[in-house]
Amino acid sequence: MRPGAWRRALAEFLGTGLLVAIVVGSGIFAERLSADAGLQLLENSLATTLGLAVLIVLLAPVSGAHFNPVVSLADAVLGRRRGTGLSVGEVGIYVVAQILGGIGGAVLANAMFGVATTIATNERATPAVLLAEVVATAGLVLLINGLVRQGQPAIVIGPAVGAYIGAAYWFTSSTSFANPAVTIGRIFSDTFAGIAPSSVLPFILAQLVGAALAVLLTVALFPSKQDALTTAAGDPTKVDRSAK
Amino acid sequence: MRPGAWRRALAEFLGTGLLVAIVVGSGIFAERLSADAGLQLLENSLATTLGLAVLIVLLAPVSGAHFNPVVSLADAVLGRRRGTGLSVGEVGIYVVAQILGGIGGAVLANAMFGVATTIATNERATPAVLLAEVVATAGLVLLINGLVRQGQPAIVIGPAVGAYIGAAYWFTSSTSFANPAVTIGRIFSDTFAGIAPSSVLPFILAQLVGAALAVLLTVALFPSKQDALTTAAGDPTKVDRSAK
Amino acid sequence: MRPGAWRRALAEFLGTGLLVAIVVGSGIFAERLSADAGLQLLENSLATTLGLAVLIVLLAPVSGAHFNPVVSLADAVLGRRRGTGLSVGEVGIYVVAQILGGIGGAVLANAMFGVATTIATNERATPAVLLAEVVATAGLVLLINGLVRQGQPAIVIGPAVGAYIGAAYWFTSSTSFANPAVTIGRIFSDTFAGIAPSSVLPFILAQLVGAALAVLLTVALFPSKQDALTTAAGDPTKVDRSAK
Amino acid sequence: MRPGAWRRALAEFLGTGLLVAIVVGSGIFAERLSADAGLQLLENSLATTLGLAVLIVLLAPVSGAHFNPVVSLADAVLGRRRGTGLSVGEVGIYVVAQILGGIGGAVLANAMFGVATTIATNERATPAVLLAEVVATAGLVLLINGLVRQGQPAIVIGPAVGAYIGAAYWFTSSTSFANPAVTIGRIFSDTFAGIAPSSVLPFILAQLVGAALAVLLTVALFPSKQDALTTAAGDPTKVDRSAK
Repeated sequence: MRPGAWRRALAEFLGTGLLVAIVVGSGIFAERLSADAGLQLLENSLATTLGLAVLIVLLAPVSGAHFNPVVSLADAVLGRRRGTGLSVGEVGIYVVAQILGGIGGAVLANAMFGVATTIATNERATPAVLLAEVVATAGLVLLINGLVRQGQPAIVIGPAVGAYIGAAYWFTSSTSFANPAVTIGRIFSDTFAGIAPSSVLPFILAQLVGAALAVLLTVALFPSKQDALTTAAGDPTKVDRSAK
Repeated sequence: MRPGAWRRALAEFLGTGLLVAIVVGSGIFAERLSADAGLQLLENSLATTLGLAVLIVLLAPVSGAHFNPVVSLADAVLGRRRGTGLSVGEVGIYVVAQILGGIGGAVLANAMFGVATTIATNERATPAVLLAEVVATAGLVLLINGLVRQGQPAIVIGPAVGAYIGAAYWFTSSTSFANPAVTIGRIFSDTFAGIAPSSVLPFILAQLVGAALAVLLTVALFPSKQDALTTAAGDPTKVDRSAK
Repeated sequence: MRPGAWRRALAEFLGTGLLVAIVVGSGIFAERLSADAGLQLLENSLATTLGLAVLIVLLAPVSGAHFNPVVSLADAVLGRRRGTGLSVGEVGIYVVAQILGGIGGAVLANAMFGVATTIATNERATPAVLLAEVVATAGLVLLINGLVRQGQPAIVIGPAVGAYIGAAYWFTSSTSFANPAVTIGRIFSDTFAGIAPSSVLPFILAQLVGAALAVLLTVALFPSKQDALTTAAGDPTKVDRSAK
Repeated sequence: MRPGAWRRALAEFLGTGLLVAIVVGSGIFAERLSADAGLQLLENSLATTLGLAVLIVLLAPVSGAHFNPVVSLADAVLGRRRGTGLSVGEVGIYVVAQILGGIGGAVLANAMFGVATTIATNERATPAVLLAEVVATAGLVLLINGLVRQGQPAIVIGPAVGAYIGAAYWFTSSTSFANPAVTIGRIFSDTFAGIAPSSVLPFILAQLVGAALAVLLTVALFPSKQDALTTAAGDPTKVDRSAK
């Protein structure tokens, strides 16, 4: 039995919100405390690695812990044939919850640091950076769906996704946003973690291209027993089994 | 069969003491060795992430490894209906052991670094920082109880809690005390890890608000099979099962 | 039933490519953002630790996740007697896929950072550094084969290999290349992560010596039930079992 | 059936040797590359955290992966009653292998960095530092024996011990040697990781006091089903079970 829709939406809202609060909050603190730009990014990326892993482990049994519109979309596409993916209506609910969470998380981070919420001025959309977003998102979506198709439990997927993002902060020139809801949330942070509104649409398009690429790679590499994230997520017995 | 009360109290005393020794000791060492304030916090937070995870894994089978009065309180409240939580008397014993441990840990850390124990002068209680303590504590208590209700073993909960605190050092402006016993212990460290006595009461009130919020979120997100930490903690067979 | 040859070659190409993209990309970013050479290496090594662990967990069920010609060679040698290792033809396919991946990964990293691909000028082959490569490779190949002979699943081997490389960046003066395909890929990065062509052959010879040493140590320490990587890798049920 | 004595001695020699090579090698590299003393210690401690975890996971099924005379001693004492601990003769073999390994590891690290092996001049034995060694060793030996008495497998104990040492580098003023064989090995490194011969005996005495304290705490907290490390270590089926 799947958890009720409102409960899953709450989990997506809360998870995406805390994810953006972590990204933006640790970005503000790093900028405030450290002089070296690389050290700032190290602090920012390690906080995200640890926090994201935990959020996924905690909330996967409720909603699947997507926290990311392209992950929800890929789930719907890859699970469509066997009827295990999200429906179109569910994707809509998830995406709205994720975007609201992303914005709320940025506002919360600003409040915790006594910073007024203003719109970011950080222009990011160069060709090299957009290529980086394609790669970052393709890697993320392939990782999640590959592990789901292996039948891995949330206690494996969470740390794996956290670790991937921790690496992707550093091997992509975009610092790996790889998530439209997080991208929208970061509009509301005028720090090195922010993104100017004019760069948002190109970023989201690059992320969609990356996700599409990942769907193809998933099918090629993992012709699968299990088609989508949501099955494991909605069935609490699967998570229990992983802990035994 | 639950371990005897004195053995559980010893575990809470020892665990909280070592936790504070880690927080304060690594704070002293970081301040002594590094010039950059962010680097100091990175050293301090990584030591805590690693050390806290290990303390929980080690001591959870003895006492549940609360090390934190608001965790013990939440355990009592969430486990009340099914009779699996701590009783009021047990909460009292736990909290006393935790506070004594917290103070002892700070004194021990000072002694290991040849520093006299003096009272902290670090004023911390601003509105933004108190909001951060509410968020940090809510996240911590939700995480613990959510994982307990999923039936996760100590070898999952320990690293998850350590990772959460490692992230929360950075995404909250308070560096995430989130623990009344640790807050009291840090009075006895006049370093960047310390807290002036005048800030302690506001911090503890914020932590109680956060814990109450977490209890509500736990019930909303994880309407549960299992109600409290202590069941798993007191039953050694559950821990064994997790290792197989 | 083993995955088809083309699918396994794709996994080796992709995995080695992403590994080199991580090594080179994070090297470029670290050099750009940080002033201290040690901090640059810390950023580079942590990104590799996290990324490599994830790549192995993801792709081990497809190809065994060797990403390294000397690992494939050792697999063939150690698994020969019981017929579980790679055949000579398979080793050939793997090595070609790995080398092409290594080069592709460096080119991709350069593109993501808007850097033209040029040949490295970083001379590395001194006696002390070559000794370090022997030690680094011996440790890596012993680790992998020891864990395989213990019957450990990919979710243990991946993080263990990532952690080993993270340590080996620091305890060897070569920063632990330990991989001929990665060594060749790094020719195409004129950064601190690169290697001048004239140093490549000595590096690969040192790596072969290290791998041979590791094969002897594996047989001495783990006279085994199971002879090679590929068995576990090619049988998806083994990975599933590890997750339960 | 336990692995043969020579094979276990080889594992202890190799494991302790690589542990000291990691500690000393990463110390040399950190000192060479970084200016900030805290950053040097961070690099040194993270390399050790990762490397030690891996060495234990790899070699525990062969020898129990003690790599430390006081761990072997505690194993003999705690396992004596049920006949599962090391015998006096076995302790002797282990300790000799560990000390030879410790010295060899320092010499190897020096060679990999092109440094002549000279005797350390780093005086360390102050009262505060010796107290720190007591605490560090007590924590280490309690952790290992507590986890063994819980029946935890090597894949849990390895990362836990690595994490503990990573924290203990920072919360103790001694940077947590906590190991007589490693202490002796570090005589042969004239770097910040080294120790002058005149400080060695006080360090070892402090470590023995810490280990004795840990034996008492282990008995108090974990009145046990299983008495010693070596049982699990010597019986390969136990490790296999943990991986399933």
